[in-house]
Amino acid sequence: MNSYIVPVEWKDTYVRLLDQTALPERETYLEIRTAEEMWDAIKRLCVRGAPAIGIAAAYGVCIEMKRYMDRTEKEYRAALEKTIRYLGTSRPTAVNLFWALEKMKQVSEACEGKRNADVCAALLAEARSIEKREERACIAIGENLLTLLQGKKTILTHCNAGGIATVRYGTALSPILLGKERGIDFKVYADETRPLLQGARLTAWELQKAGVDVTVITDNMAGMLMAQGKIDTVIVGCDRVAANGDAANKIGTYSVAVLARYHGIPFYVAGPLSTIDRRTPTGREIPIEERAPGEVVNGFGRRTVPEGVNVYNPAFDVTPHELITAFVTERGIVERPDEEGIAALFAGREAE
Amino acid sequence: MNSYIVPVEWKDTYVRLLDQTALPERETYLEIRTAEEMWDAIKRLCVRGAPAIGIAAAYGVCIEMKRYMDRTEKEYRAALEKTIRYLGTSRPTAVNLFWALEKMKQVSEACEGKRNADVCAALLAEARSIEKREERACIAIGENLLTLLQGKKTILTHCNAGGIATVRYGTALSPILLGKERGIDFKVYADETRPLLQGARLTAWELQKAGVDVTVITDNMAGMLMAQGKIDTVIVGCDRVAANGDAANKIGTYSVAVLARYHGIPFYVAGPLSTIDRRTPTGREIPIEERAPGEVVNGFGRRTVPEGVNVYNPAFDVTPHELITAFVTERGIVERPDEEGIAALFAGREAE
Repeated sequence: MNSYIVPVEWKDTYVRLLDQTALPERETYLEIRTAEEMWDAIKRLCVRGAPAIGIAAAYGVCIEMKRYMDRTEKEYRAALEKTIRYLGTSRPTAVNLFWALEKMKQVSEACEGKRNADVCAALLAEARSIEKREERACIAIGENLLTLLQGKKTILTHCNAGGIATVRYGTALSPILLGKERGIDFKVYADETRPLLQGARLTAWELQKAGVDVTVITDNMAGMLMAQGKIDTVIVGCDRVAANGDAANKIGTYSVAVLARYHGIPFYVAGPLSTIDRRTPTGREIPIEERAPGEVVNGFGRRTVPEGVNVYNPAFDVTPHELITAFVTERGIVERPDEEGIAALFAGREAE
Repeated sequence: MNSYIVPVEWKDTYVRLLDQTALPERETYLEIRTAEEMWDAIKRLCVRGAPAIGIAAAYGVCIEMKRYMDRTEKEYRAALEKTIRYLGTSRPTAVNLFWALEKMKQVSEACEGKRNADVCAALLAEARSIEKREERACIAIGENLLTLLQGKKTILTHCNAGGIATVRYGTALSPILLGKERGIDFKVYADETRPLLQGARLTAWELQKAGVDVTVITDNMAGMLMAQGKIDTVIVGCDRVAANGDAANKIGTYSVAVLARYHGIPFYVAGPLSTIDRRTPTGREIPIEERAPGEVVNGFGRRTVPEGVNVYNPAFDVTPHELITAFVTERGIVERPDEEGIAALFAGREAE
């Protein structure tokens, strides 16, 4: 049975992408046949969520390279390098994009001298392996989070770190979806998450499909709910975790972390090892994407900001590690994450 | 010169209301000729902002009672009492509505036995006096706030407590608009203020008209800006202040107050004495209006929450007095407001 939604799927002649910009009104799928189409789909957030972007980029390399199959080996290799570089320019913050493309590059290098068809096959095998790895990671993250959620009933989440941001169970939503399968019913409050409303549009849609009790609130209601004692735990995903445990995630996450701290509520960040960027020492060095003002000004219909007024639209913010109760990965839970705790995740072995 | 916007204006045969739901796209005005039309305009937020609602309700009584001029004295009096009660059911949180209607009731009682025309004249004189009083209060509040803003450059505000929420200069925006006239240039960040976007639609519009440097952000960006050191001061209005200094204001205000405290930024609440409700001991007893889910679900165009998903939509939250650096009124500044500080405002005299 395959009743869950697959946001990115390899279909041999194209990559099938759930068009997340059309949700919740329409469940439509794009057929991506070139790197350019994939770049555009990532940029426009048709596919979004750090792990899903990595998987999409890896398959994007594969689908583009199919077009070069009958070129000379040299032309093929030049196109491959160009494609990997090009897809890396689609979005700057989620490190999984660069991590997945780096893995594709390693495969490409290991295949030097091989026939185009063999390189293609190796690239595809790597993309599939990235997808599988992220799926396993999601399940393990869910299991680990469930151990932290004993006796907890009500969870607040921000943005969407569900199956459509990753594979299958998601990261932040994994314990909720896994729990549901086992008869554990959490009540979830979903921040709508301005400007693009991933919480209202995507988290609510996914959880409703799974039969989870979900209530949408505007972002600015989270503090009131916490003060009313309605929130037991906060769980969010992440787009890049620095070597010291600082975590970049969707804009507004930092405010939720401060509110959780003020109210004494645990604040968990969930993410696979592929989201950790050990080359970025702290959150200060994480590049923060700034997106077009139009997303704030008239994202969902009529214009809501007067013409000519300034608009600031950073897509992410950074939560310093001091505000994170635990960082939950597939390889274990890092309580009060810091440089040492993050390094310990990799002790003796790198991310596979 | 009358270049500022008048949100509520007595026009003898009707009350002219700026339709704030159409801003910033269209500056249109309603002609209100009955209490029912006024009730509806208040309910639908065509006129909003605690002091403006009070003024609108007072004029609403006057315009309705013009229709009963040639009835018997007894019929007139019955209609007057009914109208005052009726307008009080339009919205529950802003106490200025009840304060203004109470004043109209006192006039009505003082006029017992007088001719209908004389009662009408007395009611209109009272409504005009309420308007004048609030205008003076706004200026005094602005002057008082300016003394707190010495050396401050950047102000964050939430929702709209400008001229169109009150009279002329507004409350929270008064020092900014007064300052502008005197060559003091503040930079303002306006929280867009979901769900109804009063910050994006109204505050940005008013400040832009006045030539003030204003930048709109989504509500969830405020924490990031504070962490970046971009906010010197927060100023907000209020809809009802309890006897102990707890302040109800637009949903999201409480979160901003917690964020300001965490970052060591002064958090000022501005409001006229008419917003203080000494009969409500603490914020816990302030009735919080819950509005229709539609405001969250598809307020500005396409539907953004799936059908059947729960939505919570409280219109206000309460900031406990401990989080308020100062409450600024026309009669002075109450630092670290509490029951004693609020009572001192009234020492020897009630609100006029």
